[in-house]
Amino acid sequence: MNVRPKPPAESGKILYTQVYDYIWDRIRRGDWKAHDKLPSVRALAGELQLHRLTVFRAYGLLKEQGIVYVKEKSGYYVSEEQPHADPAAPKGEEAAFFVPTAAGVSEKALSGPRHGGGRMQNTLSEIHRIPADYSFSQALIDPNLLPNLFLSDHVKQVFDRYPKLLGTYSSVQGDEELRELLSADLQRKNKLQVSPDELLITTGGQQAIDLLAGVYLRPMDHVLVERPTYSSALDCFRQRGARLLPVEIRRDGYDLDVVEAYLKRHKPRMFYMNPTFHNPTGYTVPAVQRKQLVELAERYGCLIVEDDAVHDVYFDAPPPPPLYSYDTEGWVVYLRSFSKYLAPGLRICAVAARAAAMVPLLTAKSLADNGTPLVNQKLFQHCFESVRLQLHLEKLRTALQIRRDVMEQALASGTGWQWFRPQGGLNLWVHLPDGLNANRLLTESIRRGLTFVPGTICDPMGEMNDQIRLSYSFMNEARIQEGVHLLVRLAEELVQSE
Amino acid sequence: MNVRPKPPAESGKILYTQVYDYIWDRIRRGDWKAHDKLPSVRALAGELQLHRLTVFRAYGLLKEQGIVYVKEKSGYYVSEEQPHADPAAPKGEEAAFFVPTAAGVSEKALSGPRHGGGRMQNTLSEIHRIPADYSFSQALIDPNLLPNLFLSDHVKQVFDRYPKLLGTYSSVQGDEELRELLSADLQRKNKLQVSPDELLITTGGQQAIDLLAGVYLRPMDHVLVERPTYSSALDCFRQRGARLLPVEIRRDGYDLDVVEAYLKRHKPRMFYMNPTFHNPTGYTVPAVQRKQLVELAERYGCLIVEDDAVHDVYFDAPPPPPLYSYDTEGWVVYLRSFSKYLAPGLRICAVAARAAAMVPLLTAKSLADNGTPLVNQKLFQHCFESVRLQLHLEKLRTALQIRRDVMEQALASGTGWQWFRPQGGLNLWVHLPDGLNANRLLTESIRRGLTFVPGTICDPMGEMNDQIRLSYSFMNEARIQEGVHLLVRLAEELVQSE
Repeated sequence: MNVRPKPPAESGKILYTQVYDYIWDRIRRGDWKAHDKLPSVRALAGELQLHRLTVFRAYGLLKEQGIVYVKEKSGYYVSEEQPHADPAAPKGEEAAFFVPTAAGVSEKALSGPRHGGGRMQNTLSEIHRIPADYSFSQALIDPNLLPNLFLSDHVKQVFDRYPKLLGTYSSVQGDEELRELLSADLQRKNKLQVSPDELLITTGGQQAIDLLAGVYLRPMDHVLVERPTYSSALDCFRQRGARLLPVEIRRDGYDLDVVEAYLKRHKPRMFYMNPTFHNPTGYTVPAVQRKQLVELAERYGCLIVEDDAVHDVYFDAPPPPPLYSYDTEGWVVYLRSFSKYLAPGLRICAVAARAAAMVPLLTAKSLADNGTPLVNQKLFQHCFESVRLQLHLEKLRTALQIRRDVMEQALASGTGWQWFRPQGGLNLWVHLPDGLNANRLLTESIRRGLTFVPGTICDPMGEMNDQIRLSYSFMNEARIQEGVHLLVRLAEELVQSE
Repeated sequence: MNVRPKPPAESGKILYTQVYDYIWDRIRRGDWKAHDKLPSVRALAGELQLHRLTVFRAYGLLKEQGIVYVKEKSGYYVSEEQPHADPAAPKGEEAAFFVPTAAGVSEKALSGPRHGGGRMQNTLSEIHRIPADYSFSQALIDPNLLPNLFLSDHVKQVFDRYPKLLGTYSSVQGDEELRELLSADLQRKNKLQVSPDELLITTGGQQAIDLLAGVYLRPMDHVLVERPTYSSALDCFRQRGARLLPVEIRRDGYDLDVVEAYLKRHKPRMFYMNPTFHNPTGYTVPAVQRKQLVELAERYGCLIVEDDAVHDVYFDAPPPPPLYSYDTEGWVVYLRSFSKYLAPGLRICAVAARAAAMVPLLTAKSLADNGTPLVNQKLFQHCFESVRLQLHLEKLRTALQIRRDVMEQALASGTGWQWFRPQGGLNLWVHLPDGLNANRLLTESIRRGLTFVPGTICDPMGEMNDQIRLSYSFMNEARIQEGVHLLVRLAEELVQSE
């Protein structure tokens, strides 16, 4: 294969908004107070090792928003009055969507004292707080698809077996019986060589991502992320002050030349990826690339964080083996979450890592919560090893495939909607008809009791305003159909009104 | 009261070891590589806003340990070979204790790739990993003191009531019924005005501390901590790169002049305190100081983090009201953990915070794990509201008081042991007989199957090597007696052998 290497786009937009965030964060925290002189463009560019133009553009935006002012021949100063609302990210108006304030506490927050906490956001979690009749934003399994009676009977057996369960702490790393079970299972079903010592139990995949960000990322570190990707991972990395380097994910995977150019040029600490039934696109990175990616990671000393949340939710054929299975040198950390589709109320994720990554992860986990509660682990263990649960998984696949088909049929009733048909996972990644923008549509949809995830928050660059993620996992067929028809109508109204 | 204000000791030792940590961390992460020239003393002192002598001493220690070398008339350079083991904290030999390597994974870690993770440690968690016949290091309730049969019967009722519990996610903030219950309970029993909206459910107090550190602390921020205090909180703050300002805690509370001088001079972001049956000393800060502390926090804009983990474990009289009850302006965040003494396997903590702190905490919680699993919350709720559990609490108090008395009697059999008699909580804070040092004693004790917490790890300055924490909550009376007698014998042998 002879592909001409493309130089990675230096995502200037990302960088200057990050500098903007950095400066505004320090002003909000009170490091720089009203009428303080700010560092010169030259000095700040030197400190952050950036091009001066990038810092200049950041100051320009801060000035435009009234956060700083300029004294002729002197420099930039902090304004007396700061804008009240957090503009979150400096985007144009059409790149934001409107959330009714009743849904959040954000308004009240403005009246309290300023504690100087850093800027943080998790936009996906804000969307999930919105009450909705049709929730296409929740990539969760409908609780009605779970074998609930079986599960609650099972719980009773577990408590008969471990009567002191509520009184017992887990170890930080996780229950040994559970780790042995998962180690054997990963070996049998996925050919993964991972010993119980190489497994850490976390409270869902989200915690694993947050722990890894805490261990590996410092302000201004580079991290490779897919474009688009899971937005709460982006928020985790941003919270640590990391710089995001976006790698497009396509039906056939990544452009490895772009990946290599980034690795060479920026020496990123980490490549966070979701190569199997990717969220939000549904794409699966082919086996041949998986091997090459592990080689690249090893060559350039970049840790791959492989997030594998829906490995078992495939429709026709199982996905290729995880990248972790190609890794002999310890450059891949593998997150296998069971939280999505098997007892989601228990929030169990297994993190596979060799000792070099496991040691700092264990410390981070001990500081984060001293270990996932034993109750969750023991209940999960006994559900997971039961024959019944494996039958459940087969039924679940069929049910989800039907829901995917229903969603596709309903979407086909509209004009100009385009999507990729996923072979697994919980989502459809949909291109909107021409002339529609995702955030406008979401604002209208929220008013009508319908939510979805706009492309903008999945895109590390904050663009992709012509795409949305619709989850088909949370509602039943009838409601999916109604909801999608409502969405299609709303879209038509919006296009006509313009 | 006319106390002459003492200037707070500028804890030079702390600061220079923190600079040492900072530089070594960056070398380990590969920011500065072998034979790179390091910033000059002058430049680094400027960047970190420290006295040059502090930076000079840090470089001195790095040089001594072979981490950097000096070129005449040029400056400091990174050495080719780095010491293999992590010297953790640059202390003298007697300030460290020996943990058998079989207990940890630290040895293996050295063979893997260097991912450039930051330096992290949680020494308490390492002590807990050591298998021991007599575990005085665990400040946990003996599972045999819990009403286990009642709890497991109860679980079954909860699952009958919520058959879909395992399939349902919690909100990020926590289950509403549980927050309503706790809000009413805090009001009724503790006169705390806290609405359900002002409560966040976390996975134990440890998670709450970690979330708060993430929201409020950036590298080189100052944080006030008690001396001694809970060592895992110190590790959380160190992990964020914060500078620790130690405030002595005594039987009658703090020296408020010292506190105020620190507030004035260093503008700390946070005062982390544990004013009720303090860990490890057992002291309780008197009511009059509580009010004054809240006023100081408000005057100087410093957030008080009030950790209240054993509020209900009192022996004779209930403790004074929490600082939170005096706070009208939102400068106190209150951590009420139920994890220690009521269904510890569920790990439930309630964080009370006004909106200004709650908003960023909710974001941090959503990024950390998307909310504490619902199972834990619902099981806790129904245990907590049952009449039986309140009876359990009364029995528990009596049982713990007896264990405390047994431990005191056993200690009295030795010579030169001194301690404070706590009126609640789980620990005795013990001064060793003259000539003994805690880490030597711990090393010997581990060999004989006995663990405790050495004062050094509770002290933000790493000293207090003549004090230890013994928990009387985890073992029964007979084993407490045997264990303390063993400890007393070991101490006598050590003194005689010197």
